[in-house]
Amino acid sequence: MPHKIAILGASGYTGAELVRLIATHPAMEIVAMAANSKAGLKMADVFPHLRHLALPDLVKIEEIDFSGVDLCFCALPHATSQEVIRDLPKSLKIVDLSADFRLRDPAEYKKWYGNDHAALECQAEAVYGLTEFYRNEIRTARLVAGTGCNAATGQYALRPLIAAGVIDLDEIILDLKCAVSGAGRSLKENLLHAELSEGYHAYAVGGTHRHLGEFDQEFSAVAGRPVRVQFTPHLIPANRGILATVYVRGDADAVHETLAATYAEEPFLQVLPFGQHPSTRHIRGSNFCHIGVVADRIPGRAIVVAALDNLTKGSSGQALQNANLMLGEEETAGLMLAPCFP
Amino acid sequence: MPHKIAILGASGYTGAELVRLIATHPAMEIVAMAANSKAGLKMADVFPHLRHLALPDLVKIEEIDFSGVDLCFCALPHATSQEVIRDLPKSLKIVDLSADFRLRDPAEYKKWYGNDHAALECQAEAVYGLTEFYRNEIRTARLVAGTGCNAATGQYALRPLIAAGVIDLDEIILDLKCAVSGAGRSLKENLLHAELSEGYHAYAVGGTHRHLGEFDQEFSAVAGRPVRVQFTPHLIPANRGILATVYVRGDADAVHETLAATYAEEPFLQVLPFGQHPSTRHIRGSNFCHIGVVADRIPGRAIVVAALDNLTKGSSGQALQNANLMLGEEETAGLMLAPCFP
Amino acid sequence: MPHKIAILGASGYTGAELVRLIATHPAMEIVAMAANSKAGLKMADVFPHLRHLALPDLVKIEEIDFSGVDLCFCALPHATSQEVIRDLPKSLKIVDLSADFRLRDPAEYKKWYGNDHAALECQAEAVYGLTEFYRNEIRTARLVAGTGCNAATGQYALRPLIAAGVIDLDEIILDLKCAVSGAGRSLKENLLHAELSEGYHAYAVGGTHRHLGEFDQEFSAVAGRPVRVQFTPHLIPANRGILATVYVRGDADAVHETLAATYAEEPFLQVLPFGQHPSTRHIRGSNFCHIGVVADRIPGRAIVVAALDNLTKGSSGQALQNANLMLGEEETAGLMLAPCFP
Amino acid sequence: MPHKIAILGASGYTGAELVRLIATHPAMEIVAMAANSKAGLKMADVFPHLRHLALPDLVKIEEIDFSGVDLCFCALPHATSQEVIRDLPKSLKIVDLSADFRLRDPAEYKKWYGNDHAALECQAEAVYGLTEFYRNEIRTARLVAGTGCNAATGQYALRPLIAAGVIDLDEIILDLKCAVSGAGRSLKENLLHAELSEGYHAYAVGGTHRHLGEFDQEFSAVAGRPVRVQFTPHLIPANRGILATVYVRGDADAVHETLAATYAEEPFLQVLPFGQHPSTRHIRGSNFCHIGVVADRIPGRAIVVAALDNLTKGSSGQALQNANLMLGEEETAGLMLAPCFP
Repeated sequence: MPHKIAILGASGYTGAELVRLIATHPAMEIVAMAANSKAGLKMADVFPHLRHLALPDLVKIEEIDFSGVDLCFCALPHATSQEVIRDLPKSLKIVDLSADFRLRDPAEYKKWYGNDHAALECQAEAVYGLTEFYRNEIRTARLVAGTGCNAATGQYALRPLIAAGVIDLDEIILDLKCAVSGAGRSLKENLLHAELSEGYHAYAVGGTHRHLGEFDQEFSAVAGRPVRVQFTPHLIPANRGILATVYVRGDADAVHETLAATYAEEPFLQVLPFGQHPSTRHIRGSNFCHIGVVADRIPGRAIVVAALDNLTKGSSGQALQNANLMLGEEETAGLMLAPCFP
Repeated sequence: MPHKIAILGASGYTGAELVRLIATHPAMEIVAMAANSKAGLKMADVFPHLRHLALPDLVKIEEIDFSGVDLCFCALPHATSQEVIRDLPKSLKIVDLSADFRLRDPAEYKKWYGNDHAALECQAEAVYGLTEFYRNEIRTARLVAGTGCNAATGQYALRPLIAAGVIDLDEIILDLKCAVSGAGRSLKENLLHAELSEGYHAYAVGGTHRHLGEFDQEFSAVAGRPVRVQFTPHLIPANRGILATVYVRGDADAVHETLAATYAEEPFLQVLPFGQHPSTRHIRGSNFCHIGVVADRIPGRAIVVAALDNLTKGSSGQALQNANLMLGEEETAGLMLAPCFP
Repeated sequence: MPHKIAILGASGYTGAELVRLIATHPAMEIVAMAANSKAGLKMADVFPHLRHLALPDLVKIEEIDFSGVDLCFCALPHATSQEVIRDLPKSLKIVDLSADFRLRDPAEYKKWYGNDHAALECQAEAVYGLTEFYRNEIRTARLVAGTGCNAATGQYALRPLIAAGVIDLDEIILDLKCAVSGAGRSLKENLLHAELSEGYHAYAVGGTHRHLGEFDQEFSAVAGRPVRVQFTPHLIPANRGILATVYVRGDADAVHETLAATYAEEPFLQVLPFGQHPSTRHIRGSNFCHIGVVADRIPGRAIVVAALDNLTKGSSGQALQNANLMLGEEETAGLMLAPCFP
Repeated sequence: MPHKIAILGASGYTGAELVRLIATHPAMEIVAMAANSKAGLKMADVFPHLRHLALPDLVKIEEIDFSGVDLCFCALPHATSQEVIRDLPKSLKIVDLSADFRLRDPAEYKKWYGNDHAALECQAEAVYGLTEFYRNEIRTARLVAGTGCNAATGQYALRPLIAAGVIDLDEIILDLKCAVSGAGRSLKENLLHAELSEGYHAYAVGGTHRHLGEFDQEFSAVAGRPVRVQFTPHLIPANRGILATVYVRGDADAVHETLAATYAEEPFLQVLPFGQHPSTRHIRGSNFCHIGVVADRIPGRAIVVAALDNLTKGSSGQALQNANLMLGEEETAGLMLAPCFP
């Protein structure tokens, strides 16, 4: 008997990516899909690339009978998500892809997102969904909060180094190059092809990107003292991918050894041989994260480069990985698709 | 026991695509991979996106012991392929992705490819690999010749119409828009990013493209009399995809009904509702072919638009589909991956 | 004394392109720029690439004192343009870039654009702005209607052939490949980078594109009898360019000779040697149109390929070319910029 | 009488860009163009986008009579350039675009480029061609060495800050995002469209990029003591542009004020209002460099972002700017083309 799955917010890119991945999953069946603005349409009308699949029609959330659902993916916009999840049955397992339950401290939540949190009791039980570091808590969680795609990339590069004490905690700079699908399917002038193709630029410069809330929370927790990093994302004319170039102070060999040892048994985290570094083309459409370490010419400095697909390992793939744990399935089920290159 | 698979010419894009697809196949194991110019390297050195897979190292063809191989994919360049296949064990099942065994008439072969054929006895037994139209022959074939990617696209749009007699055989124009991976991983100036990005152009204009040999052979055979079409391919700044805009004379409804009826039970050929037409983004990375029909404002004329991924349905996916038939496996095994969008 | 120029609708791509070109013009000064939705802003706020220029601030149209203006470019949306132009001073020279004054027959206008025309008296005096064919009328015109970008491309390929009687008038097919800036800076889902990059598709299939109104009007006038062509545009993942692949019936040599002879003295129309054909990359950002002719393998058929930049020769460059004539300037003034490649 | 200009190495992208710019120059005439591998061809055969220009045919260098030449642009590959320039007439003014004369210390040259310098006497007289900082020397120079495109971008962001002492000299990190035309028209696998489109990656990680030789030389000279920066370039799927994200320690306001004051009178260097930062799309095809400064959330840290076109301000445009000075022309002649957006 496959697990019965619902997807809320199915008309966005992360919703479509969930469907793409679950389509090859041996033990999941999508029984309900909601997209309020597109209710009444077939998924193939919204995403013609999924037209070969037998999928339920899109409905409004309130039309779903959750009694027949084992697990619900919630791919709704920030702020909306918390109100919806608050009112879902308490017996339902939920993987949330929004930012609503990532920050444990309500004050931090308000600082980065601007509004008072509307579901603090849910936030209290939510587990942070960076699978490789919260595996045990996720297995038994009812509500898992998917990480930000930038936040995931940066943490894969840095968490083991902070934990091992091999880098200077006050000298961390993350320069990220992000593909455009991370901004979703929203109608904004700077996401138009004519604006973005052949053009690229930084955004949220100076420490204003909301994913910094996650970095602050997680890195400080790992270090046992406050850690503040510099983080500058850039929008790149490509559809999928995040490349994080991370500047750290510490012994480059120790940095590499720490990452290699930490991820030695991880199915999705691939540490390249010392001195090599990854490209986004080699993880596109997959749940893999490639990480490389290079020593700088200045002694005591190293560059860590991490690459993942923002829609897969950075969002929907990670969500499915967490759902697998919550449902007692093989963690890699539906996720071993090879990257799509070229 | 999985089938033992060898891939010759594994260092090109179609070789890598075969590996990507077979990686999810439930009953195939790659036991040997050859790439003469890269012999001695690991596949991950040539294609880092496949680094998570346990694959045999690249060797020279002559190093392979074919006695342990059930089926061999041959993704070698044209002309090279025929000499290699000629010398392979006669007991070995072979799916050839080159152009070498597509044309049954040696004179036609020489006309389009310039050289005398070096393996006429193999050509005599080769089955043309357009799966949906040669299924029974493929099941029992020893050697299957994969079609050209442009030739496949055009045939999916036109074969049923020619067979049904619903279009004028002397008034067929195919205008194709082809992504760049169809040209392979070869070092040519016009394939550089700086040349191609933001630029596009026709090529082989006027009826000089070699895939016309396949059109002539197949369309004439279906029609029972000579058929000559106009065919102009264009190079588009995208990595994957072929979009065929086919101008035909005939009743548009009859055209649509004929295609819909012909492909009603086909797993990979999706005919859209009348008046709709496809986009390459919706078949990227998949084995699906989407086909649409629109009536022109001029009575008695119709436009058929077909879209497929040149590396998958146009080449390696089709090859795997044929291999499945030859090995007695489910025809769709390893091929139901949903398209990768965005 | 430079001519005093106003630009209405300066916040769109064609408005920006006008400014880019006029910036190098030896005898024009932009004295007013209107963009109702952006009134009060500096042009550099809307188009930072123009920040080095000393330009008037954006205002509402009604704020402009036209008494100090010699010529006004009107780059407003269709339907809006006719109402604005109707109310402009009758002494003002106007080059309209919209579709509002292209069709001489009000019934045809309504058929293609849906609404009754609101300025028929202006329409009556408007001259069709395909410079090379209406040069004398344009010199003395008060109001010139810029052609559609697709309509211009097709006419450059076909008008001389229709006039010379060297092709079959009932067997003309235009397959166009259009870059995305032709759709303007409007917020539409299918213009997002994540949708369009790596994807391409046909649109307005079957003879529904509005530029057909221009083809019908102009080709019929040239031929002296009704001419109806087939025309299918495609959206290509590039920012600038139109490539027209035109299928005609006639002697290919005669086709080439006719085009070469017609354009022999034209500064912007470049006919390539017989058998060569153009690429959009070689006209990008310029006012040039490259045209090639190739004979098909089927006797009596030829392919004409034309390439131009939709924003320059297809729109703003053509508009400036017309303005030069209307103001008694050198026709090529400000327009000899070489294409920007790569 | 226009100045007589020769271009050596005319078949590369920087050679073509020189021709594009000089085509609008009021006082220059190209009298000779050499490209040894293409000698005998017309420039239009190598670069069809220049076919409208009357240009001399391509010849071998030794075929040029330099007695009729006022100034020679040398756009040859590194190492080749020094041997050619050594043997040119001593009376000839030369602007070299290669790396051969950028480093004043022969040991540094050998360290970064690997070979002994073959024209040390020319190196001794060469002036470093970063126009805004070597203007007076360039005016009277016989041989000017164009800077590296990355080196120019970084220096525009940093030289005034180092000179003013407003940043910590030991804490400078440059993270550059470079478009692909910077790699030239060379046939390399990683420059293919199918490899690069939709993919991006770092290169020369860890301080191995040759432009570091220029940073070391120039920054140390400005500071009066050794300065060593961290520098990581990345290859981005775009054709033109460099975006430098520069992490510095110092008061952000002082950083902005220093840059704004330094460049207040510079025609090509545009410092944005505090808190704004540039995009490559807004400088494409032009000689402008846009610079922005943002304060980081961590006190005492700032981010400087600089954008320029690698082929124009980063190479051929700068070369023309220098040539203007050497020939007594207006420094901006031929260089005020507005950026080409979209």
